[in-house]
Amino acid sequence: MRYSVFPGGKRVRPVILIEAAEACGGSTKNAVPAASAIELIHTYSLIHDDLPSMDDDDYRRGVLSCHKKFGVANAVLAGDALLTLAFEMIANEYSPGTGMEMVRELSCAIGSMGMAGGQALDIAKHKDIKTINRLKTAKLFEVSVVMGALSAGASASMIEALRRYGLSLGMAFQAVDDSLDGESRVSRKAAEGLIAKAKNVLKIFGSRADGLKEIANGIIRPLASLRGAKRRSNR
Amino acid sequence: MRYSVFPGGKRVRPVILIEAAEACGGSTKNAVPAASAIELIHTYSLIHDDLPSMDDDDYRRGVLSCHKKFGVANAVLAGDALLTLAFEMIANEYSPGTGMEMVRELSCAIGSMGMAGGQALDIAKHKDIKTINRLKTAKLFEVSVVMGALSAGASASMIEALRRYGLSLGMAFQAVDDSLDGESRVSRKAAEGLIAKAKNVLKIFGSRADGLKEIANGIIRPLASLRGAKRRSNR
Repeated sequence: MRYSVFPGGKRVRPVILIEAAEACGGSTKNAVPAASAIELIHTYSLIHDDLPSMDDDDYRRGVLSCHKKFGVANAVLAGDALLTLAFEMIANEYSPGTGMEMVRELSCAIGSMGMAGGQALDIAKHKDIKTINRLKTAKLFEVSVVMGALSAGASASMIEALRRYGLSLGMAFQAVDDSLDGESRVSRKAAEGLIAKAKNVLKIFGSRADGLKEIANGIIRPLASLRGAKRRSNR
Repeated sequence: MRYSVFPGGKRVRPVILIEAAEACGGSTKNAVPAASAIELIHTYSLIHDDLPSMDDDDYRRGVLSCHKKFGVANAVLAGDALLTLAFEMIANEYSPGTGMEMVRELSCAIGSMGMAGGQALDIAKHKDIKTINRLKTAKLFEVSVVMGALSAGASASMIEALRRYGLSLGMAFQAVDDSLDGESRVSRKAAEGLIAKAKNVLKIFGSRADGLKEIANGIIRPLASLRGAKRRSNR
């Protein structure tokens, strides 16, 4: 569990969770347990997705993937235990009202109608890539900012705005990722449209959402450098 | 997920959960969501334990095991989603106070210091069988009756008594199971001692715990018939 969590990664999901909490007037301190839980969930999904029966990846976060290092059985169990630990952290760190809402949102986002369902559609080579990306990637982005808002005691309208921000951001993130992997054609227009949409719903937060805006801009930055690289190589 | 849950099984864990709720003066109706969640957890653990990298079992509950029927990747995901669904059910069906306590108890019982940890020790061929059985089996029995008690709004002393009942019952259950499988020598004395201990803590509940007593007696009944069979074959 430690081996897979601590080489790190971009930590995008916990970062947007904390930024969302701050946009709603909450503190980083209150958001950190939820941010940690989200990173545990993300790490569990990476461990299981890397398994030989799934994507069969030998490396992850710059080191051997969990099953390469510790065997498949331990990798399955490490993922199971990280998934469980995320719920344990929420239950131990939040008041019953806030924690219960987080458990409800998180379980809905990552179960059979969310991340796990999206991965199942993906391995079944389902044709609706948009649905796969929404379930497999965007829902975890969405629930990250929603949990940040919940940690800040945000209003329903703030939660709703962040929900839409997270969903658009997640779809853009996956589109950019696929482009960089060469798995799909670079749809710069589509990604830019999603990012514009994500930034648009942030207006109600004023300057407190500057962090979230900056992250949204950062998501599509790799596309610009990709284009730049292409131009240079065309010269 | 449906395929693995609905061929059934003995349903021991949900049954003791409901009996525990009734012993505490609660209703079956209030206990059923928690009982369902526990059975989802148990089914997830069976699916993952049956995987080729773990115990490699082709059959479960009288039908092909999940990975034999749907492939390893889908079996991993079905287990993940059942684990998640258990927490979702609790969050959707109980008040924040009760639900949060259930999430805390359940996550602690099945994570790295509980069921998943026990399975990791088991596949590592750890020598301390008692610890393996406590983590891998008894903790789920324990949390079943604790969740039943929580659904009934039980007092701390009732919860404590049921905790000890569940732990002893789970240890006896595993001892009997190992005996029947021929994996360990029949320690009838040890199993009978555990069952006596389990029944002893039920005194505070009076006749409302008759169901739990009967279940405790039922756990070691197979040993008696095993002994009978041996005697007959000795003649």
